[in-house]
Amino acid sequence: MSTSIRYSVILGNLGNTNDRFLSTGYKVQPPKEEMIMAAATIEGVSGIELVGSWDITPENSSRMKEILAQNGLTCVSIIPDLFSQKRWANGSFAAKDSSVRKQAIEAAVEAAQIALEMGCPLLNIWPGQDGYDYSLQSDFRQERRWFTDGVKEVASQFPMIKFALEYKPKEPRTHSFLARAADTLLVAEDTGLDNVGVCIDVGHALYAYENVSESIVILQERGNKLFHMHFNDNYRYWDDDMIVGSVHLVEYIEMLYWLRETGYTGWYSMDQYPYREDGAGAINASVQFLRSLEQFMCEETIVQIRGLIRRGDPIEASHWLREKILPSPMGTSD
Amino acid sequence: MSTSIRYSVILGNLGNTNDRFLSTGYKVQPPKEEMIMAAATIEGVSGIELVGSWDITPENSSRMKEILAQNGLTCVSIIPDLFSQKRWANGSFAAKDSSVRKQAIEAAVEAAQIALEMGCPLLNIWPGQDGYDYSLQSDFRQERRWFTDGVKEVASQFPMIKFALEYKPKEPRTHSFLARAADTLLVAEDTGLDNVGVCIDVGHALYAYENVSESIVILQERGNKLFHMHFNDNYRYWDDDMIVGSVHLVEYIEMLYWLRETGYTGWYSMDQYPYREDGAGAINASVQFLRSLEQFMCEETIVQIRGLIRRGDPIEASHWLREKILPSPMGTSD
Amino acid sequence: MSTSIRYSVILGNLGNTNDRFLSTGYKVQPPKEEMIMAAATIEGVSGIELVGSWDITPENSSRMKEILAQNGLTCVSIIPDLFSQKRWANGSFAAKDSSVRKQAIEAAVEAAQIALEMGCPLLNIWPGQDGYDYSLQSDFRQERRWFTDGVKEVASQFPMIKFALEYKPKEPRTHSFLARAADTLLVAEDTGLDNVGVCIDVGHALYAYENVSESIVILQERGNKLFHMHFNDNYRYWDDDMIVGSVHLVEYIEMLYWLRETGYTGWYSMDQYPYREDGAGAINASVQFLRSLEQFMCEETIVQIRGLIRRGDPIEASHWLREKILPSPMGTSD
Amino acid sequence: MSTSIRYSVILGNLGNTNDRFLSTGYKVQPPKEEMIMAAATIEGVSGIELVGSWDITPENSSRMKEILAQNGLTCVSIIPDLFSQKRWANGSFAAKDSSVRKQAIEAAVEAAQIALEMGCPLLNIWPGQDGYDYSLQSDFRQERRWFTDGVKEVASQFPMIKFALEYKPKEPRTHSFLARAADTLLVAEDTGLDNVGVCIDVGHALYAYENVSESIVILQERGNKLFHMHFNDNYRYWDDDMIVGSVHLVEYIEMLYWLRETGYTGWYSMDQYPYREDGAGAINASVQFLRSLEQFMCEETIVQIRGLIRRGDPIEASHWLREKILPSPMGTSD
Repeated sequence: MSTSIRYSVILGNLGNTNDRFLSTGYKVQPPKEEMIMAAATIEGVSGIELVGSWDITPENSSRMKEILAQNGLTCVSIIPDLFSQKRWANGSFAAKDSSVRKQAIEAAVEAAQIALEMGCPLLNIWPGQDGYDYSLQSDFRQERRWFTDGVKEVASQFPMIKFALEYKPKEPRTHSFLARAADTLLVAEDTGLDNVGVCIDVGHALYAYENVSESIVILQERGNKLFHMHFNDNYRYWDDDMIVGSVHLVEYIEMLYWLRETGYTGWYSMDQYPYREDGAGAINASVQFLRSLEQFMCEETIVQIRGLIRRGDPIEASHWLREKILPSPMGTSD
Repeated sequence: MSTSIRYSVILGNLGNTNDRFLSTGYKVQPPKEEMIMAAATIEGVSGIELVGSWDITPENSSRMKEILAQNGLTCVSIIPDLFSQKRWANGSFAAKDSSVRKQAIEAAVEAAQIALEMGCPLLNIWPGQDGYDYSLQSDFRQERRWFTDGVKEVASQFPMIKFALEYKPKEPRTHSFLARAADTLLVAEDTGLDNVGVCIDVGHALYAYENVSESIVILQERGNKLFHMHFNDNYRYWDDDMIVGSVHLVEYIEMLYWLRETGYTGWYSMDQYPYREDGAGAINASVQFLRSLEQFMCEETIVQIRGLIRRGDPIEASHWLREKILPSPMGTSD
Repeated sequence: MSTSIRYSVILGNLGNTNDRFLSTGYKVQPPKEEMIMAAATIEGVSGIELVGSWDITPENSSRMKEILAQNGLTCVSIIPDLFSQKRWANGSFAAKDSSVRKQAIEAAVEAAQIALEMGCPLLNIWPGQDGYDYSLQSDFRQERRWFTDGVKEVASQFPMIKFALEYKPKEPRTHSFLARAADTLLVAEDTGLDNVGVCIDVGHALYAYENVSESIVILQERGNKLFHMHFNDNYRYWDDDMIVGSVHLVEYIEMLYWLRETGYTGWYSMDQYPYREDGAGAINASVQFLRSLEQFMCEETIVQIRGLIRRGDPIEASHWLREKILPSPMGTSD
Repeated sequence: MSTSIRYSVILGNLGNTNDRFLSTGYKVQPPKEEMIMAAATIEGVSGIELVGSWDITPENSSRMKEILAQNGLTCVSIIPDLFSQKRWANGSFAAKDSSVRKQAIEAAVEAAQIALEMGCPLLNIWPGQDGYDYSLQSDFRQERRWFTDGVKEVASQFPMIKFALEYKPKEPRTHSFLARAADTLLVAEDTGLDNVGVCIDVGHALYAYENVSESIVILQERGNKLFHMHFNDNYRYWDDDMIVGSVHLVEYIEMLYWLRETGYTGWYSMDQYPYREDGAGAINASVQFLRSLEQFMCEETIVQIRGLIRRGDPIEASHWLREKILPSPMGTSD
C-alpha cells in the first residue's frame, strides 16, 4: 500500500536559479529536453509539473507531451505563470488594474486548455503577486473579492480539471492574500466550486508556523480539499526551499502518516530552489529521503504511531523515535 | 460618529502579574473592588471583562453586578476559565480525557448562565490549553471535532449570547487549535450556529504574521463574524501584551479604519499584561492612545485613507502619515 | 573517547512547573530529596545543577552536599537566583536602583561561597531580569556598564570558580542584555577576567537564529570561552524547553561534533521545562537521546563528518544522514 | 546641531529591481547618469554610495567623480561587489576555493584603490555569500579565519580608508558569517586594525531581533566601531527593504537619540529595494521621514528623552509620544 506514493518534480527545479543579488543566476540554464531527461533518471519519479510560459505554451505543448511520454513521465500539474512577468508586478487576479485582472484570467484559461490537451488533471495556482507590501495599500475587501471571482471564472469553465490554490505567507509580496491553509480554504469555498481546493507547500506551511499535519487534516476534514503537495524544507523563517530532511525529520513522519490517514491520493511533488547545488542531485536527495520514509512507514510503524497519538505522551514518542533511528546508548555509563 | 467607540478592560489586567520565573508575581494582588474602582477612573472606559472563577462565580455574581453598576461600568464579556486550573492541563473542550471535556462544557455553561444573570451579551472563549506541544502527540482530527462539538453544545443552549472564539498561535501550548483568524472562523462555522464568531486579539494576530486589518475584513466578509476585539501591542514574535502603540502605529490606524468600514459594533477591550508597570496606568495609556487615534480618524482623515487605499502607492502613504504626525523638515538642508 | 561525556540535570526540572496562566503549577512539588533520588536513577547522569535560594542556601548546603554524595552525584554548577524574587523585577546587576545592584552582588557572592563549600567549580549566571521591555526605557550604555561591573566585582573575588554567563534573546524581558553568544562574549571580555565565560543554552541559541555549532566555535576560538552547555529543544521562535531531539536532529549531530572538535570539556546539562510531562521521564528521554548520539558519533562517523564539512556538499550530506538513520528505499519504484 | 546630519543614497536603489521570480526586474534600468541626477534632486541628499562593478570600475571612476561633482554629490562609500557574480556563489573571503579567496581580496583592493582616487573615505563590505545554507556544510573555524585574514590583508594596505563590515542574519545564504552586531565586531577586532569597524543596516538589525539603539551603543562603547549606517524598514522577519517609517516609529526616534548621544559622525545612508515603487520617490520618502525626525529631535525633545530613559517608565513614555504625534482625546467620552 505504501507503494502507491507517486513522486513528481517541478521541472524548473532542475534549471538555473537566481536571486535578487545574482539575477543571471548561480548556474547555467540547460535545455528543457535535458532537464526532462535528468528528471526521468531520478529513481522513483514518474511525474512532472510544468510552469506556463517558462516550460509550456500552446505552441510547444504537443511536442512537450511527446517528450514526456518518451521519458516515461506524466504531466501531473501545470502552474500558470501569474508571477514572473512585469505585467503581474502588482497582482494578477486581484490587481487594481482591471485589464491586468482580465489578462490573468486569460493566462489561466490558456494554461487550463493546455492541461486538457496534455491530459494533465490539475492546475496549481500560485498567485505570488496577489497581496500587498505596505499598510494602507490594499483594499482587502475589494481585492480579495476580485481574486475569488477570477478563480471562479476560470475554474467554472473547466469542471474536469482540479484547481489547487497554493498558499504562502509572503514573498514576493510582504503579505500574500493566500497566506495560510485555512485562509485559502475559505477562498476555495467562496468560489462555490467542487474543483477548487488547496495545495500545501511544506515549506510555506512551516514558516507560517503551521504544523503541516494539522493543516492536512483541516483541509481534508472540510471535504477532501487537499488537492496537491509540494515538498521541501527550511528553517521556519523563510522559504529556503531546501532538500527534504535537511532540518526536520519527525514532522515528515507525522505528515506521511496523516496524508495516508486522511486518504490523500495526489502526487508528492518536489518544489525546491537548489541555488548552488546540482539541481537533479538535490531533487534526487529529497525523493530518496521521502522514499526511505515510505519504507520506514510500514504497517507496524503505522500501528505504533496510531498508539502514540492516542496516548499523547511525548516521552514515549521520544524513546520510540530514538530507538527507530539511532543506536542504543552504551549499557553502562562508566 | 467616532464617538461611538466603547472601551473596556479585562479586570485582571489591573491585578498582580506573574510569569514562570516569578510565580508569586511582580506585584501585590489588590482586592477586586479596588481594581474595579481603578478601572472606573480611566477616562473613556465604560465596560469590564471578567474571568470566570478568578473574578466571577455563581456566588458573587449579583454582588459583582452591583459593584459594577455603582461604578458606572457594564460587564461586556465573561471569559470562562478553561486555562488556569490543573484539570485543564491537557485541554478543555478537546482534552483526550472525556471527563475533562465534560467539565469544560459545564464550566462554560456556568459562565453563560452568569452572563445571562449579569446582562452580559458575550462569552469570550479562550481555550488556551487546547492544542499540543509535540509532534505525534495530537489526534488533530478527533480532537478538533471534540472541540467543535463542545462549543456547539454550549452555544446552542444560549442563543441570546454571542460566543467569541479567541485565537492565538501558541502559549501555553506550543501549538493552539485556534491558532489564526481563518482557522477559527472554520471552527465557528462548523458549529452551524449564528451566535458563534471570533475574537481578534491584536497581539495574537501580529505574531501570527497576520495583518490585523485583513483579518478583520476576512471575518466580517463571511457574515460579520468578528464579535470582539482585544487590544495590546508586541514585537511580532510573542504575546508581549504591551501598551497599545508601544511598537506599532500605522497598523492601528489601518485597523480603526477597517473596523469602522466593515461595521464592527463591538467593544474595544484592553487585554495587556503589565508585568512590571502600574496596571491601571498601563491600561490608561492604551485607552488614551486609542482615543487619540479616534480623534485622529476624523471624517477628513477617513476620506484621505480611502483615497490612499484606492491608489495603493506606499510613497504617497508615507508622505501623508509623516505630515500628519511629524514636523516638516527644514526648508533647506544647509 | 566518547565515553568522556558527562551528563547533568538542573534539579528544578524534576519539580513543579508553572506558567503565567497557571501560577500554582501543572504538577505537585515533590520534596528536594525525592527529586535528587529521581535524578540519580537516570542512566548516565552524574551531576546536578542547583538554583540558589530555590535549592541551595547557606543553611542547607552541607546537608545538600551529603545527599548528593549519597546518591553518587556531583554539584556541577550553582545558578544564583537573580530572577525569581520581586526585588529583581527591574534587573539585578543592571538595575537602575543602586541598592538592588548591591543586593545582586551579595546574592552572587553568597552563591559563590556555597559553591566553594560544595566543591562546585562553576557559577552559571542567568540574569533574566537584566534587560528592558520598551523603547526609551533603558540607558543601554550605563546599564550594560553596571552589569559588567557587577559580574567583575563578584568573579574577581573567586578566581578558582568559573563564571558562565548564560544568554537568551528574551523572556522574561522582551530584550535581554545578554541576548546572543557574541554579545555575551563581549561582556565576559570586558570584565578582563579569565574566569568569566559563556554558557550556551541550545534552545536560547536556536531562537536567536544562531547555528549552535557556529556559536560554539566563535566562543572557543576566542580563548576557550565556552564554559557550560544547557540542552533542550524548541520550534526556533520561543524557549519551549522541550525534550532534546523533539524537533531537531542533524543540528545536535553537528553540535556534538564541534563540541568535541573544539575541545569542550564541560558538562552536558539538561535544562528543560516539562510543563505537563513527568519531569524525570522527560529528562531521561533527553539524556538517552544524547547518549544515543554519543554512540552514533563513533570514530568512523567523525571521520565521515570531517569529510562532509571539508567538501561542503549538501546533497552528499543528505544521502549520508539518510543512510545512517533510515531504511533504504525499495529497489524499484513499481 | 541637528543640521549636521548628512544623508546619502545607494545609487542602485534608483535603478531596476528584481527578485528570484522576476529576474528581468519590475522596472526598466535607467542610465547611471539619470539615476545620479535623480538622487541629486532629493532634498537633503548630498552623498552617494556606489557598488563596485555595477556602478564603478577602474575605467569609469574619473568620469563618475566628475558627474557626481557636477551634481553636487560626494561619494561617501564604495561597496565592493563580492556577491553578484557567479564566482562568488560559495563565498568570497571565506570561500573553500583558495583561488576565489584570492579574487575576493583583489576585488576589494581594486575597490579601495578606486575609493582613494575618488576621495571616498569608506569601503562598505557586505560579504553576502560568505556563510552557509545547510548543517554539516561549513568548517566554521577555518572559514571564519579565512574571512578575517582576507579583510585584514585588504584593510592593512589602506590605513587611510575605513572598512565597515555590514552584517545580516541571512540572505542570500540561510546563515551569514557576519550575522549580528557583536559577531561582526569580534571579526573587526580580530583583524587588529583600527580602520575596520561595523555598518548597521537598520533592517538587518531589526530582523536579527536586535534593538538597533542597543547595537549602536555596543559598537560605540567598544572604541567607536560604528562606521556607517544604512536605513530602511521591515516587518522584523525578513529584509523587506521598505521605506523608513513604514512599520516602525519610536525605534527610529530612539536610534536618532543614541546616534547623537554616542557621537556617531558618519552618514545616514538609504538602502532600500523599492521593487514596485518609483525608486527616487521611495528614497525621497525615507529621507524626508528622517529629516522630519531630525526636526522633531530638537534640544527640548532630547532633554525629555534623556529623562524618560533615566526613569524608565513605559507609561510615561507612552503618554509622551502620544502627545507629541497625535491629537488629544476628546475631553469627555460621551
